[in-house]
Amino acid sequence: MKTSKTTKPLWSESAPPAGTFRSIAKYGDPRAFKHPSESWVRMMMQEFDMSEADFRQRRDEGLAPVVLGRPSRLSADQLGALASIVGDKNVAADDYSRTKYASGKTAEEILELRSGVVREVADAVVHPRSKQEVQKIVALCDAERIAVTPYGAGSSVNFGCRPYAGGISLALGTHMNALLEINETNQVARVQPGMMGPAYETALQQAPERFGCKRRYTCGHFPQSFEYSTVGGWIVTLGSGQASTYYGDAYDLVFSQEYVTPAGSFRTIEAPATATGPRINDIMKGSEGSFGILVEATMKVFRHTPENRARFGFMYPTWEAAVDASREIMQGEFGRPAVYRISDPEETDRGLKLYGVPGFADPLMARLGLEPMRRCLCLGTVEGDRDYTRLVSRKVKEVAKRHGAVSLGGYATKKWERTRYTEPYMREDLNDFGILIDTLEAGVTWDNLHRLHQGVRAFVKSRPRTMCMTHASHFYPQGTNLYFIFLARMGLDEYVPFQAGIIDQIVKHGGTLSHHHGVGRMLAPWMEDHLGPQQMAVLRALKRHFDPHNVMNPGGQLGLDTIPPRR
Amino acid sequence: MKTSKTTKPLWSESAPPAGTFRSIAKYGDPRAFKHPSESWVRMMMQEFDMSEADFRQRRDEGLAPVVLGRPSRLSADQLGALASIVGDKNVAADDYSRTKYASGKTAEEILELRSGVVREVADAVVHPRSKQEVQKIVALCDAERIAVTPYGAGSSVNFGCRPYAGGISLALGTHMNALLEINETNQVARVQPGMMGPAYETALQQAPERFGCKRRYTCGHFPQSFEYSTVGGWIVTLGSGQASTYYGDAYDLVFSQEYVTPAGSFRTIEAPATATGPRINDIMKGSEGSFGILVEATMKVFRHTPENRARFGFMYPTWEAAVDASREIMQGEFGRPAVYRISDPEETDRGLKLYGVPGFADPLMARLGLEPMRRCLCLGTVEGDRDYTRLVSRKVKEVAKRHGAVSLGGYATKKWERTRYTEPYMREDLNDFGILIDTLEAGVTWDNLHRLHQGVRAFVKSRPRTMCMTHASHFYPQGTNLYFIFLARMGLDEYVPFQAGIIDQIVKHGGTLSHHHGVGRMLAPWMEDHLGPQQMAVLRALKRHFDPHNVMNPGGQLGLDTIPPRR
Repeated sequence: MKTSKTTKPLWSESAPPAGTFRSIAKYGDPRAFKHPSESWVRMMMQEFDMSEADFRQRRDEGLAPVVLGRPSRLSADQLGALASIVGDKNVAADDYSRTKYASGKTAEEILELRSGVVREVADAVVHPRSKQEVQKIVALCDAERIAVTPYGAGSSVNFGCRPYAGGISLALGTHMNALLEINETNQVARVQPGMMGPAYETALQQAPERFGCKRRYTCGHFPQSFEYSTVGGWIVTLGSGQASTYYGDAYDLVFSQEYVTPAGSFRTIEAPATATGPRINDIMKGSEGSFGILVEATMKVFRHTPENRARFGFMYPTWEAAVDASREIMQGEFGRPAVYRISDPEETDRGLKLYGVPGFADPLMARLGLEPMRRCLCLGTVEGDRDYTRLVSRKVKEVAKRHGAVSLGGYATKKWERTRYTEPYMREDLNDFGILIDTLEAGVTWDNLHRLHQGVRAFVKSRPRTMCMTHASHFYPQGTNLYFIFLARMGLDEYVPFQAGIIDQIVKHGGTLSHHHGVGRMLAPWMEDHLGPQQMAVLRALKRHFDPHNVMNPGGQLGLDTIPPRR
Repeated sequence: MKTSKTTKPLWSESAPPAGTFRSIAKYGDPRAFKHPSESWVRMMMQEFDMSEADFRQRRDEGLAPVVLGRPSRLSADQLGALASIVGDKNVAADDYSRTKYASGKTAEEILELRSGVVREVADAVVHPRSKQEVQKIVALCDAERIAVTPYGAGSSVNFGCRPYAGGISLALGTHMNALLEINETNQVARVQPGMMGPAYETALQQAPERFGCKRRYTCGHFPQSFEYSTVGGWIVTLGSGQASTYYGDAYDLVFSQEYVTPAGSFRTIEAPATATGPRINDIMKGSEGSFGILVEATMKVFRHTPENRARFGFMYPTWEAAVDASREIMQGEFGRPAVYRISDPEETDRGLKLYGVPGFADPLMARLGLEPMRRCLCLGTVEGDRDYTRLVSRKVKEVAKRHGAVSLGGYATKKWERTRYTEPYMREDLNDFGILIDTLEAGVTWDNLHRLHQGVRAFVKSRPRTMCMTHASHFYPQGTNLYFIFLARMGLDEYVPFQAGIIDQIVKHGGTLSHHHGVGRMLAPWMEDHLGPQQMAVLRALKRHFDPHNVMNPGGQLGLDTIPPRR
């Protein structure tokens, strides 16, 4: 039953040349690639009316060297003052550095970079070596009215690290990236903000060898950007990891924090709970660099027991059944799975194609009442104590069966685990052939879930030849997160207003403006309406307090001040 | 082996006469009493060097009628304006009302009331009927610079409802006390702030009959003051219920809130999680009436399955063993008990006396290595799904046994459940015979627990004839709460500085200033040192934003402005 083989597209398989725009735009490891499967290519050709020829010619590859032609606006005195704090080697004002540390991974900025367009950049990039240096830098910048835009690992998808007002990019990952201490008694780890996910997790897992601990630990936070994001970034943008349903969101994982702000430096109370007024520890979370710089975080950690991990997978006959079962599981009071996700019919069927499910599977599923464009994939894991993982697995299975699901065992989840961090790599390939891919996501209560899903899909599907895959991940007793993935052959001129339309639909149908991507500058224009003027005024009052001269990540971040125009 | 019977003390067994100070000072139901057991009386006589005669003569009973002799400072126009909002019947300016709604249950104010001393009172008590009325009241009071001190059910133990600057007491429990809606899909309940614990819980349990729900629900929040506290009070003071180890603290139970402040009214986002900047929903929690008035709360609720509740009890050989086992349980990743408490040796032994453990128990325990003034009682429950409660019970038992504990079965917990809300009633009896009882509590990490326990005990025990019973309750993977109970024959002149000394010790030894009692005015003098000036400045910036004219609970609350002198 095999269909005729498509000629393999002309995938790029070489690391972007140093100094090029592509080297900034490309996701992750420069030498790592992940190409769409053959059946996906066939699907795209059909869906987007593309020919094989369309996959033989890469476009806007961004292979030109980065040249800005915009001199730094910092004075020699200012640059000298910065260098005197961090050392000459840790101040860079070359075009490439300024561009690199001004760029995140927003679909729009990736496409612009590929065509050599650079929006705002900082006048210099500064790499602090310690929190004491950050203090001096913030004091200097506050006094000199130099904007400070923090940069973690640059995986922002909303222009969060774009230095709209110039000044400096503060690169926290270069030096401030160590795990300082594991307190095994309290099960917390003190970490610098610029530490990358894998280094952090590895250090925790190697706690006995590295810190003389009795046990191994895990951070419990595994966003898709895990390999290219920092602990500090997780906190200040309110990220969520793929296992958040058990471990909690970044918000929940923070035990205490230390901040440097123009209004002073402080460490929040170290206690499991306190009733001493509104919790400063929580007020700072999600501040996206607008209040000050997170210079140290003490994070909750968990026992690392991969040997206990249980995996499950189900195919539900319908989206409604998958949602109902998931709600039942989350409200069941028998513990929670760690990873838990359900894909809507479009994502399920396209996912099956992406991962090349064998030809015999389809008729088999049909026989079981699991029909294409109706069936929904669910996958997940249970972590923790061995008896606990067994109990929760059994309970999840019971609920699933009651809702008509067919168990797939752990196969799908194992497959997903192997690719969980590599999917962003496909963007280069898609972009190379003019296909735009982007995502938006929203927190939503159970009673708004279908409305939101349908509302967004109706809008997206009103444009012909546009894919819209949705999954729910990050579950709570009160609701979940809907994650929308869009693919289309579309240029930015069309996409930017189209994306705005989708965001309008999200808010209109009861989703939050963001569940775990943060706000940045991209979602800023919606903030005032979304929170309402009274609550925006609270955020602005905090902003004024911490940063009276508006030097901390100014220019629209969180919608706190003037929001820059998009295009 | 029974010792000679003590003559029964002259316990008061009549409801305080209407209009008297005692009727304000007495805890709970005016007609309900709970007397210390016979063995407790014997113990007190021995410990405090008291004779039977000392228990025959009640003192400072507060039986005089409340007379203030302080005319209301509100003008007739102001009183009229208030009456035009809430109706004549809902504005009271009589001495009794003004005193009652100015009083909480702080040890100090109880003793003062008993001797006819009244500190600051409001000039009128206002009973709003709706959030719209609260809006009008706040607008009026802001314009007229009339202080507004909210009053829930008056169980504050830190002068939280003392109207230091006069103005009005805003009594939220009189009318704004309804459960408005149960959203079964999202498992949340929308409730007015003045609803009392039992009414709220009963309504949730009767969800099928009252709201046509499919299931019964529980609020999960059962503080000792449950019967005389309000949902709004739980939130704005950051309370914790006795089952918080599973259900979470009040902080965790709040889904969304609606506030009326001088800077405007707003309802926070309704979503299980959101990454739209610092969470206003959390910023408001713990604001103790200083930012504005909580007029509605949407709370997470849980399936009510009392048939699944499992109970356990253990006697540990030592406090160290009890603490170690508890930490192991909380970090074990197998789910958590709901109620969980461990009593230190002094509380354990005095508790055994209080509850009259049969004479044969002592030698039996000694045979098992559970010696007086070393052994520690642990008790608790597991709630939720039936298989889950079985699993967690089994795990708790396994850990306990590994740490040398002897299982007591569910007996002690059942006994405790019957008296869990009635212990505060004993205060009247103690006070009647000149015995002061008070409590302080602190959040603490595991690695500071023993230091804090020993530090407080060393200080308290440096005063002869002073009982200090401690238990840990409200557990987290990172630590717990230490709850200290003090009893002594002591007057207020001695107690106030003594209490200050204990608070100093708490902070010095790494406890938080409060774990779940809030701050009020009593702990306010420690706030600046405890949080540090930078973090106090954050709270003050919020205060200035919400309440620029300082009319919301002014006069020291949370240490935000001038802290009134104590005595």
